[in-house]
Amino acid sequence: MPPDAARRSDRSRRAILVAALELVEALGYSRLTIEAVATRAGVGKQTIYRWWSSKGPLLFEAFVELGPIGQYPPTCGDLAADLRLELRVVVEELGERRFDQVCRALLHEARDDLLALLLTPRRLRLEERLRAAQRVGEVRLEVDVAVAADLLLGAVHQRWLLRTEPLSGQHADAVVDLVLRALRG
Amino acid sequence: MPPDAARRSDRSRRAILVAALELVEALGYSRLTIEAVATRAGVGKQTIYRWWSSKGPLLFEAFVELGPIGQYPPTCGDLAADLRLELRVVVEELGERRFDQVCRALLHEARDDLLALLLTPRRLRLEERLRAAQRVGEVRLEVDVAVAADLLLGAVHQRWLLRTEPLSGQHADAVVDLVLRALRG
Repeated sequence: MPPDAARRSDRSRRAILVAALELVEALGYSRLTIEAVATRAGVGKQTIYRWWSSKGPLLFEAFVELGPIGQYPPTCGDLAADLRLELRVVVEELGERRFDQVCRALLHEARDDLLALLLTPRRLRLEERLRAAQRVGEVRLEVDVAVAADLLLGAVHQRWLLRTEPLSGQHADAVVDLVLRALRG
Repeated sequence: MPPDAARRSDRSRRAILVAALELVEALGYSRLTIEAVATRAGVGKQTIYRWWSSKGPLLFEAFVELGPIGQYPPTCGDLAADLRLELRVVVEELGERRFDQVCRALLHEARDDLLALLLTPRRLRLEERLRAAQRVGEVRLEVDVAVAADLLLGAVHQRWLLRTEPLSGQHADAVVDLVLRALRG
């Protein structure tokens, strides 16, 4: 591609990603159409379909590229405080309309693989924090940190996903407190 | 409706539900069509659409009506053994093609409400078992059994949903063992 065409193409791509995120926030996922994204981004529908097969993968890329996905709070050294903070950020993020809509979009399009990717950074942070706690003896060495992360995140993701009860910081704290009893020596 | 017409209508409904379950097992959800269900059940497509708006709610009703949804193992009195067994049944059920496909179908059609209903019986059993354990002092009274059930089920549902790692009885056991440490006095 000649340099000018490449630059134009980059600009279009970015305009599409920005439009997709703005629209999912304004309309929600089910009312979002590729046509509306194209109009807002000032490109033709075909341009979008050349790069993305449907709105799920388009939104995923928009999120990854135009992140950051929420904040990454600094750890303070106190295990309970750190885990509470991490899990509260997960709750906030899932409660944010844009993030919620993108995640559900991926589910509805059966893109579990992309959803897993989107949720992975938080999991890695948690596992890393748990491993650090193991090194200083705050978490038993026999604990499988992947299973511990399943407990912490699963409890929250399940409520979010099934909407059985509203997500809340209080619920997240209760989850952390219960899990901590299992992790300590 | 005259008695004969009511009987015919009942027969059609049942034939549709049976066909839907057989086909989701044979084809998986994405290849299942209302047309194929109609053909197999010997009814017209319009008959199906008169009762159900799409394949998600149709499959849900088929599951609820033609259950049972897996087995309900008798409790043996030992808390650890009971929880392990319950969670292993959850894992088996989610691993069963028909159940897996119906649950994912509901997700893909954004029927989180129906999915939650389908998963509720297991949760109620677990909570009931945890409450019984509280009454005999095996689980601390301060434990919120709903949060404990979130931990047990969330860990398993999360793996199932995101397919990050395969579900297994071993994983379920590890979840139960870790959670039990948090529940005991």
